[in-house]
Amino acid sequence: MLDPAGKLPKAPGMSVAQLTIDLAAVVANWRALDRAGSAETGAVVKADAYGLGIDDVGPALAKAGARHFFVAAAEEGVALRRALGPGPVIYVFSGHMAGDADVIRTAALVPLINSVDQLLCHVESLPGHPFGVQLDSGMNRLGMEPSEWAALRDLALAQKPELIMSHLACADEPKHPMNTQQLNTFLGMTQDVDVPRSLAATGGILLGPAYHFELTRPGVGLYGGLPFVDAVPVVTLDIPVIQTREVQVGESVGYGNAFVADRVTKVATIAAGYADGLIRAMGPRAALTAEGVKVPVIGRVSMDMLTVDITDVAGEPESLQMLGAHQSVDTVAEYAGTIGYEVLTSLGARYKRTYVPHT
Amino acid sequence: MLDPAGKLPKAPGMSVAQLTIDLAAVVANWRALDRAGSAETGAVVKADAYGLGIDDVGPALAKAGARHFFVAAAEEGVALRRALGPGPVIYVFSGHMAGDADVIRTAALVPLINSVDQLLCHVESLPGHPFGVQLDSGMNRLGMEPSEWAALRDLALAQKPELIMSHLACADEPKHPMNTQQLNTFLGMTQDVDVPRSLAATGGILLGPAYHFELTRPGVGLYGGLPFVDAVPVVTLDIPVIQTREVQVGESVGYGNAFVADRVTKVATIAAGYADGLIRAMGPRAALTAEGVKVPVIGRVSMDMLTVDITDVAGEPESLQMLGAHQSVDTVAEYAGTIGYEVLTSLGARYKRTYVPHT
Repeated sequence: MLDPAGKLPKAPGMSVAQLTIDLAAVVANWRALDRAGSAETGAVVKADAYGLGIDDVGPALAKAGARHFFVAAAEEGVALRRALGPGPVIYVFSGHMAGDADVIRTAALVPLINSVDQLLCHVESLPGHPFGVQLDSGMNRLGMEPSEWAALRDLALAQKPELIMSHLACADEPKHPMNTQQLNTFLGMTQDVDVPRSLAATGGILLGPAYHFELTRPGVGLYGGLPFVDAVPVVTLDIPVIQTREVQVGESVGYGNAFVADRVTKVATIAAGYADGLIRAMGPRAALTAEGVKVPVIGRVSMDMLTVDITDVAGEPESLQMLGAHQSVDTVAEYAGTIGYEVLTSLGARYKRTYVPHT
Repeated sequence: MLDPAGKLPKAPGMSVAQLTIDLAAVVANWRALDRAGSAETGAVVKADAYGLGIDDVGPALAKAGARHFFVAAAEEGVALRRALGPGPVIYVFSGHMAGDADVIRTAALVPLINSVDQLLCHVESLPGHPFGVQLDSGMNRLGMEPSEWAALRDLALAQKPELIMSHLACADEPKHPMNTQQLNTFLGMTQDVDVPRSLAATGGILLGPAYHFELTRPGVGLYGGLPFVDAVPVVTLDIPVIQTREVQVGESVGYGNAFVADRVTKVATIAAGYADGLIRAMGPRAALTAEGVKVPVIGRVSMDMLTVDITDVAGEPESLQMLGAHQSVDTVAEYAGTIGYEVLTSLGARYKRTYVPHT
């Protein structure tokens, strides 16, 4: 092997895109959502904190005062426990899955039990270990159905769950009748139950205090995404220019000759593509900015590169910006026909990541 | 911090999806493409070996006989050099970018120079260090234009480049006139040049020996993707079932109530979603298999979950298969309206990865 003395450089040069993650903005968003009501405010940090890095985002939120965290799977809970140390409560949405007892016990996780099977698995393998209950109030994705819960409720409550929760299917659409329908179902299922309750993620928090119960659990709003329209932007993505060229009228650019120039066009090839999470579908509609000037993507998105029409930019920009003050994750999501959540969770592994600390 | 004694378990349980990567299949594909002509056969391992892991794929290909590797950026070259040790040649498609001289020198990389600026940067910062030249034969993405090359050619050749290469824009479409046009441009630009040449990636190899020159550089075909129709499948992805439920006629499933049941439907919620690279756009069209039986995705793809109609499956499957013998990366790409390349490079970080060794 080369590099026995550790001589290979660790710091990337200028050839990779720079992703800046503003932890102070994450904390500001958490505080703003915390002020939206009187419930305690948790934090959803699944999917590596929506792609932004659980090792940095988790501790920043804990320092700001968050005491209840939510992850998707037990493995994520282990990573979060390493980052947070003992103390904060870590809930697992997928509940107690077969084979996870050791992980749940050792990392002190609180599985959100989704079914009779999971409840039996939990009380048999980890008697006395804390758990929560996830109810299905109508989304039909995770959690116990009303009939299942009715049959199991007394047994489950005797085991003293720490939380009872459910999830809204249409909270991004405040006027959708599904919201009140799920609220009423959840109220019915938890009537006379003396256990802390949680129904609202970011969208639910914005629906108002009736949806807050004892604990809210914002996710996407922390990271600057809709439906939290007042969110502070969190991510900036600057992509270096590899080279520029002048393309003549009638010449094509990129795979499949997808773009043909109808004017003399200055083309910049920049160093990020769909392997970096710049979703390939955004190709024909996407744009970036060069010092605030909007510059359109032309041709297809390549695996490691984009080609951009910078004819209208003066000078030779060293990089173009995909995310930042001029363009949010939701704008980029629109280019790709998706939602800001997917733009966040797709942010690539090749970016050089810099964290602005929360002081 | 918890876990001072390293007590937190490292092995995932059953709650995450299992991604199996068959290195023997990668090697078989490399050998098949190597037999397609008499040129030397390199290997493209950019984007973390198309998402499959450069640390495992790189050494397997080197052991099989590959001596020329290609990455997108210098940082990837450093990772590959660590995995391969000294010996194999590592080319960098983005060339010599400002600030990369130390990385290029220490990791013994060969930048593929794309412009006059890059050539000047290279000979000034690393005189005598090996390099190659990338020519633009019509794609207008990377490489020197014919006019630029004509002006620079004698100067560049005096510095003794190790390789002269270009890239085809339409090689996936064998009958596209762009192929012969680029071939002729490349032949013209390299006439009477006594330097090894490379034009063909997977698609170019399949166009026939006229496109092979001295070195070919297959990428996607190694990993089981089109246009190499005879590729051996490389990846298998099995996703565990979190829970199942019966949904009544008229009930909805998932975000936005996107699916409404028109029959009593058995729904499985499984533990992978768009944060794992199961592109959200595939939602309405996608399917998985349960012991070979095709089962359709219903509702929207969630961040960490999919909901699947398993009404027609007997028994209680423990997992459903997204990729494998019954469904290729290109089939899944069709569901999402994209190409197999993007399905590969999006494969998620939460999967438990198992490598079938190349013996």
